[in-house]
Amino acid sequence: MPHTVLDILKPLLGILAILVGAYLTRWLAHRLIDRMTTGIAEGRISSLLHRPITTTSERRAQRARTVGSLLRSVASFVIYGIATILALSKLGINIAPILASAGVVGVAVGFGAQNLIKDFLSGIFMMLEDQYGVGDVVDLGDAAGTVEMIGLRITTVRDIDGTLWYVRNGTISAVGNSTQRFGVAVVDIPIGYTADVDRALEIAAQTARVTVEHLKDDVLGEVELLGAQELSQASITIRLTVTTKPGRQWAVRRALMADVKMALDTAGIAAPLTAFTPS
Amino acid sequence: MPHTVLDILKPLLGILAILVGAYLTRWLAHRLIDRMTTGIAEGRISSLLHRPITTTSERRAQRARTVGSLLRSVASFVIYGIATILALSKLGINIAPILASAGVVGVAVGFGAQNLIKDFLSGIFMMLEDQYGVGDVVDLGDAAGTVEMIGLRITTVRDIDGTLWYVRNGTISAVGNSTQRFGVAVVDIPIGYTADVDRALEIAAQTARVTVEHLKDDVLGEVELLGAQELSQASITIRLTVTTKPGRQWAVRRALMADVKMALDTAGIAAPLTAFTPS
Amino acid sequence: MPHTVLDILKPLLGILAILVGAYLTRWLAHRLIDRMTTGIAEGRISSLLHRPITTTSERRAQRARTVGSLLRSVASFVIYGIATILALSKLGINIAPILASAGVVGVAVGFGAQNLIKDFLSGIFMMLEDQYGVGDVVDLGDAAGTVEMIGLRITTVRDIDGTLWYVRNGTISAVGNSTQRFGVAVVDIPIGYTADVDRALEIAAQTARVTVEHLKDDVLGEVELLGAQELSQASITIRLTVTTKPGRQWAVRRALMADVKMALDTAGIAAPLTAFTPS
Amino acid sequence: MPHTVLDILKPLLGILAILVGAYLTRWLAHRLIDRMTTGIAEGRISSLLHRPITTTSERRAQRARTVGSLLRSVASFVIYGIATILALSKLGINIAPILASAGVVGVAVGFGAQNLIKDFLSGIFMMLEDQYGVGDVVDLGDAAGTVEMIGLRITTVRDIDGTLWYVRNGTISAVGNSTQRFGVAVVDIPIGYTADVDRALEIAAQTARVTVEHLKDDVLGEVELLGAQELSQASITIRLTVTTKPGRQWAVRRALMADVKMALDTAGIAAPLTAFTPS
Amino acid sequence: MPHTVLDILKPLLGILAILVGAYLTRWLAHRLIDRMTTGIAEGRISSLLHRPITTTSERRAQRARTVGSLLRSVASFVIYGIATILALSKLGINIAPILASAGVVGVAVGFGAQNLIKDFLSGIFMMLEDQYGVGDVVDLGDAAGTVEMIGLRITTVRDIDGTLWYVRNGTISAVGNSTQRFGVAVVDIPIGYTADVDRALEIAAQTARVTVEHLKDDVLGEVELLGAQELSQASITIRLTVTTKPGRQWAVRRALMADVKMALDTAGIAAPLTAFTPS
Amino acid sequence: MPHTVLDILKPLLGILAILVGAYLTRWLAHRLIDRMTTGIAEGRISSLLHRPITTTSERRAQRARTVGSLLRSVASFVIYGIATILALSKLGINIAPILASAGVVGVAVGFGAQNLIKDFLSGIFMMLEDQYGVGDVVDLGDAAGTVEMIGLRITTVRDIDGTLWYVRNGTISAVGNSTQRFGVAVVDIPIGYTADVDRALEIAAQTARVTVEHLKDDVLGEVELLGAQELSQASITIRLTVTTKPGRQWAVRRALMADVKMALDTAGIAAPLTAFTPS
Amino acid sequence: MPHTVLDILKPLLGILAILVGAYLTRWLAHRLIDRMTTGIAEGRISSLLHRPITTTSERRAQRARTVGSLLRSVASFVIYGIATILALSKLGINIAPILASAGVVGVAVGFGAQNLIKDFLSGIFMMLEDQYGVGDVVDLGDAAGTVEMIGLRITTVRDIDGTLWYVRNGTISAVGNSTQRFGVAVVDIPIGYTADVDRALEIAAQTARVTVEHLKDDVLGEVELLGAQELSQASITIRLTVTTKPGRQWAVRRALMADVKMALDTAGIAAPLTAFTPS
Repeated sequence: MPHTVLDILKPLLGILAILVGAYLTRWLAHRLIDRMTTGIAEGRISSLLHRPITTTSERRAQRARTVGSLLRSVASFVIYGIATILALSKLGINIAPILASAGVVGVAVGFGAQNLIKDFLSGIFMMLEDQYGVGDVVDLGDAAGTVEMIGLRITTVRDIDGTLWYVRNGTISAVGNSTQRFGVAVVDIPIGYTADVDRALEIAAQTARVTVEHLKDDVLGEVELLGAQELSQASITIRLTVTTKPGRQWAVRRALMADVKMALDTAGIAAPLTAFTPS
Repeated sequence: MPHTVLDILKPLLGILAILVGAYLTRWLAHRLIDRMTTGIAEGRISSLLHRPITTTSERRAQRARTVGSLLRSVASFVIYGIATILALSKLGINIAPILASAGVVGVAVGFGAQNLIKDFLSGIFMMLEDQYGVGDVVDLGDAAGTVEMIGLRITTVRDIDGTLWYVRNGTISAVGNSTQRFGVAVVDIPIGYTADVDRALEIAAQTARVTVEHLKDDVLGEVELLGAQELSQASITIRLTVTTKPGRQWAVRRALMADVKMALDTAGIAAPLTAFTPS
Repeated sequence: MPHTVLDILKPLLGILAILVGAYLTRWLAHRLIDRMTTGIAEGRISSLLHRPITTTSERRAQRARTVGSLLRSVASFVIYGIATILALSKLGINIAPILASAGVVGVAVGFGAQNLIKDFLSGIFMMLEDQYGVGDVVDLGDAAGTVEMIGLRITTVRDIDGTLWYVRNGTISAVGNSTQRFGVAVVDIPIGYTADVDRALEIAAQTARVTVEHLKDDVLGEVELLGAQELSQASITIRLTVTTKPGRQWAVRRALMADVKMALDTAGIAAPLTAFTPS
Repeated sequence: MPHTVLDILKPLLGILAILVGAYLTRWLAHRLIDRMTTGIAEGRISSLLHRPITTTSERRAQRARTVGSLLRSVASFVIYGIATILALSKLGINIAPILASAGVVGVAVGFGAQNLIKDFLSGIFMMLEDQYGVGDVVDLGDAAGTVEMIGLRITTVRDIDGTLWYVRNGTISAVGNSTQRFGVAVVDIPIGYTADVDRALEIAAQTARVTVEHLKDDVLGEVELLGAQELSQASITIRLTVTTKPGRQWAVRRALMADVKMALDTAGIAAPLTAFTPS
Repeated sequence: MPHTVLDILKPLLGILAILVGAYLTRWLAHRLIDRMTTGIAEGRISSLLHRPITTTSERRAQRARTVGSLLRSVASFVIYGIATILALSKLGINIAPILASAGVVGVAVGFGAQNLIKDFLSGIFMMLEDQYGVGDVVDLGDAAGTVEMIGLRITTVRDIDGTLWYVRNGTISAVGNSTQRFGVAVVDIPIGYTADVDRALEIAAQTARVTVEHLKDDVLGEVELLGAQELSQASITIRLTVTTKPGRQWAVRRALMADVKMALDTAGIAAPLTAFTPS
Repeated sequence: MPHTVLDILKPLLGILAILVGAYLTRWLAHRLIDRMTTGIAEGRISSLLHRPITTTSERRAQRARTVGSLLRSVASFVIYGIATILALSKLGINIAPILASAGVVGVAVGFGAQNLIKDFLSGIFMMLEDQYGVGDVVDLGDAAGTVEMIGLRITTVRDIDGTLWYVRNGTISAVGNSTQRFGVAVVDIPIGYTADVDRALEIAAQTARVTVEHLKDDVLGEVELLGAQELSQASITIRLTVTTKPGRQWAVRRALMADVKMALDTAGIAAPLTAFTPS
Repeated sequence: MPHTVLDILKPLLGILAILVGAYLTRWLAHRLIDRMTTGIAEGRISSLLHRPITTTSERRAQRARTVGSLLRSVASFVIYGIATILALSKLGINIAPILASAGVVGVAVGFGAQNLIKDFLSGIFMMLEDQYGVGDVVDLGDAAGTVEMIGLRITTVRDIDGTLWYVRNGTISAVGNSTQRFGVAVVDIPIGYTADVDRALEIAAQTARVTVEHLKDDVLGEVELLGAQELSQASITIRLTVTTKPGRQWAVRRALMADVKMALDTAGIAAPLTAFTPS
């Protein structure tokens, strides 16, 4: 009977239409994602995101590709999933239990996989915002050190003891990057409570200037002498700061600390505790 | 058959109507958003929001534009999404699985993307309420320092060590802005437990007045001598305060601390620990 | 055909009826909100809320207006939203995807906007309960100081360093108001472990009474001598309290502390640590 | 046509029936609530709740009224809300969008208003269980002091500095009530590491008994001498306790501490640190 | 018309059937609950629950009754609620809005009432598992002391200061019961860093045995001498333990501590700090 | 009428079929659970779970039975519940409200009973993974001591003071088992900052070897001398370790600590603080 | 009647089709999982995951098998579950209550089983990313030590005391692996505040170089002398670092610390506290 042939053909044609539609939708989605990530890579969509301008365009482009690749996979998965279910319904299969199962699994996993999604979403935004790159010295809360690798789910950081930390991107609430444009060496020197503050400051400033002269290659600015920073029961802390090249603040700080300390000793400025030792 | 032609035309006409309706709705939504953000920019809708009056109108206008741009994108996305689904249903496609998928994805992402939405919502309100601007010295909890950039998702802050912090707006529960209209230099000086408090206060007040005279450009008010603030087993802490220009409180405090400390030493007021050292 | 005319007229009439109904409902809702907030403003609905009686009626009225304005906006938004959807369905548009979208967006935002809703709800109740006013000295947990502004979402507080804190109302779990009806100056004085407690208490009481006499304008009650409060390995802490006018407890405390301390010194009561210094 | 009249009459009759039913349901619900709260007021339903027997029946009745009033308002609101929606559906209005809107708003607010509902539920149970009354000295975690007012949402407590704390009932995980039936004055006295413990205990016991004799009005039991409680590197802590009237434990403790301390000094029991001072 | 009579009778008959069914279901549910709680009371269902065998059967029975009473109330409420809704639907009332309202209220309250349900569930299991009884000395995390009352929602505990604590059962993550079968008196005695450890241990053991002899009624086992427990920069801590009757460990510990301490002093074992005082 | 008879018979037959189906499903589910738990008991399914091989097969079998018993109860409950609802629908009863009620109760309880389900799930996995047995010395976070009983919901642990702790399985995030295969006695000895480290290490090693010889029955390995572990301002800490039988590490550590300490004293190695006491 | 036969045959044929479809789907899903895990095992899909390249391919393959085995079980369970429900519906059974029950159980368990799902998901990603292997020394937050076993739900770690820790994979927010490619021995030596820093650094560097020469087998790089790291009131801390083979950093650090310390003593560099002891 021609009737039966049509009955068989109709669902097949419907499925064909669904497949074509799915393919087109996926193509469209991929183009959209490409355009968006390219736009980000070329710096056009930076107004909505917070992105410093320091990133080189190659790194930017490579990161956009990584993010785009993930988004395209997700889009394909969702679109073909819906197409499959539509095709099944065309074949006369009751799709209610399938939808319900998907819902239950979706909710159950949604509860358990929150962390996963948070990790990936954080990773995507960190990449697009370019908060840090390989080799930067960062503080991620759970771990601090030099970045070894940046992934969509985790970032690896090597700390000072050589321990390699795998930090989930979603657990990072604030990133501190110590190698961004410049660093500041903050030197705090405790002196005795009864010491002559003005003289100590003068000596510290002179010594620091000489030291900084020797470290010219690492230093970007002048020595700034802030003065008496803290007053405890046994000591006065004096502070001076110098702006340095990114990543050099620790070496400069150590050099300044040792030199100023010894200059104060030589000049006879009282040490914090000696002031109270019986003579 | 004319019947068939109508059958084909009708859904097309319906889709056309949907597209037109979507376009109109989007236009309406955008106008609404514009009016709202403009109202905020011109300061008319400030009664519901908590907004200090210090903001300049250009900054206000620019922020309103940033927020409006985000809201318009979201509105367009939602409206065209619904229109697409309506159009599909006009073509005779079963939209139940699509809606269900959207629901599942929505819930799953809703769980994982909470932080993202929180970040953007916090960013929008921070912008509209103008809690801080670039260059302000703020304490955001996770990081404190000078604001370098304000975004809808993150704020970047440069701390005293030169470390650049990327703070997610949604993690900020309270913002402390130290550069709003004025600052207060609070000077605490510990003196020996057995020292003469009244004389120490007198000397501190005199010295502080002289120091403040030299710092006229930074100071907004008179020296306020609060008196004995704390009494520990080994020392009495005396406190005085001065109102300063915003951002100058730390320099004024350091100067006052050093000067008052030395004046007390010169006057022979006992230091906290020396009182107990064997002679 | 008259049939067609009716077919076109009927939905239009239905839409008209929906609009009229929406307008009436909105009018009713606004009247209800007005009555409720007016009732609160006039102090009639205070039995369910916890509200001290100290509020002036103008402030009460103004706050009721602020809250009422927010509630009216929300009511209008919800009512017109439902009316729009009903009207669309009268036009023969399939509203299922719209409802589903609204649901998904509602849930997704519901997750992310929890903090926002918490902030506003807390703000509304804080206003109606009048927990603090501008100029009060409060402790909100995240920040403590003088209230500068009270909003529905955030409260601004100026702390002792002059830093302005923007505190989200929803993050406040307990409010401590130090300027409510009266304050108490609590004076703790550490004396040596081997000192004569009874004599020290006597001297402290006498001195405190004289001091309080000089501060008559700030003090509301008598000096209350509580006695030996704490016994450590090196000292005994004696405590006395005075009830003062709200906001004056800190000045009274400082004056009492200095005076009693010096009187004890003059009377030769041993200081905490001197008792053990080798002579 | 009679047909049309019936068509108009039928929904009106249906609405009438709904209104009558709603009124009856509300009356029933209110009666149920009244009976329940009265039962609690008269102490009959105390088996399921945890309620000490100390409450006076007036306070109990008044609290039952406060709680009943809130529950009745909620019941009325829910019942009339449902009746309204039923009536609308009788008028031929599509109630699906209204229900969906209610659902979305319900969920969205449910997320944000959790704290509010927690506060009220905690308040209701605290009232019914009578955990504390006005004037009691309590520790609520966030604040400790004298209760000034008990509300369904917040409790106000005045602390020792005179600060008035507004504590949300839902944030209280454990309530400590120091004025329930009796108090205990716990006196800890540190003596030197090398002191004669037995003699010190004897003197402490004798002195404490004399002191307690003078404080007869405040004390409910005998002095209980527990002995050496703690052994540190520099001292032995001896402990004695006395049961007192509620609220008097602090005064009794202070008196005992001063008297026992002086008696030990007089008897030449070594003080904690003097044992090691060079002679 | 007989037709009409049947039309009226049929729903009434249906409602009757529903009521009968509800009554039967409730009877069945109650029987089930009774059997289960009786089974627990008689100790037959203890395999799934974790229950020590020490409980007396009266207490067990009484607790089973309390729990059963709550469960029966909940069962009745749910069963009659469903029956009512079924009856309404038989009367031709649209039950969709009622179900939706119930859903919204259920979810909204579900969010807010989590704590309440947690409290009751914890209470039920605590009762069935018999973790503690009135008079036991327990540590519940938020409060520690003697149990005064055990309820389904809260437990009251009297601490050492006489403060009565109301602890919500749901906030208890671990219960420490110090009066279960036996206690252990752990005595830690610090001696000087340079003291002769072996001799100190010998003296401690001898003295402890004598003391334990005097406390025979409180002690269940022998003195166990563990030896040197901790080694700090200034002292060695030696430890000995004795198993005692439940609730007597603190008295035994105090007695042992004082006796051993004095014996060591008499024997000339160096005290922790005296070792370093200049002579 | 035969028609009516069939009408009555048909639902009855349907119900019969449902009951038979439910019984068969339950039998199948039970068999599946039995096979799974038996598989675990016989160690065949250990690849997916993490299970050390130390468990004896009796304990393994008994635990599999306990877990299987719980799972069977849950399966029966769910299967008969669904069968009941199906049967009711066969009788022509509207099951929508029942399903809706079940949903609401399910969600409401789901929120409140999270902890309960977590406890049982944690208990099931702990049992199957055999993390600890009765008599093991464990650290569960909330409590540490000897395991007295292992239940599906709670584990009881007796700590060193003899306090019995009831710990909910769901609150345990990491289990530390100190009696698994072997223990390690870690001995840290502080010596004076100026002491001769090499000589101290030599003496420590010799003494430790002698001590270990005496404790042969408790020790599994050689003394391992790690060297100088920590360097503080006043002392150097030297560390040595010995592998012992499980549960004997504490006794070995105490013996080693006392012996090494005395040997160092005898050899004249400076004690931490004596180095600085004036002579 | 042929009609009846067809009626019976049709559902049977439908069920057969469902079973065949389920089998095919399962086969497809398994192939997909195999290909994915194989791809990971062969290192082709590492672009999306963050995976260091150090893993050996056998370990990689074995881990891919473990993960694949779990995923295949889950896929089979879901697919056969849906097929069963579809088959039931073909038999004319009302599947609404079954779906609803599945939904309720799914949500209820989803709440309670979050931790479980988190544990497995974390485990899967940890395996695929190869964050650590058996024998690595890791810090998992809750426990630190040597990895004994890696499971999909828990990881076991043996700490320095020999305690075996079972850590749930889901509770690990950051993994610190100390045996990855190399370690760093960081040596901090405190010297007296008044000591000659430059000379101390010189001696430290010389000594360290000699020591490192003896430890050639453990060391990978040169001694790096960082200088004065910290300045406290009583001491200066000098720091030097050496890169070592993975797992050898602790032994190298101990050797360097002892040697440098003794060299400084020998050279007469002042110790931290001796500087202040009266002579």
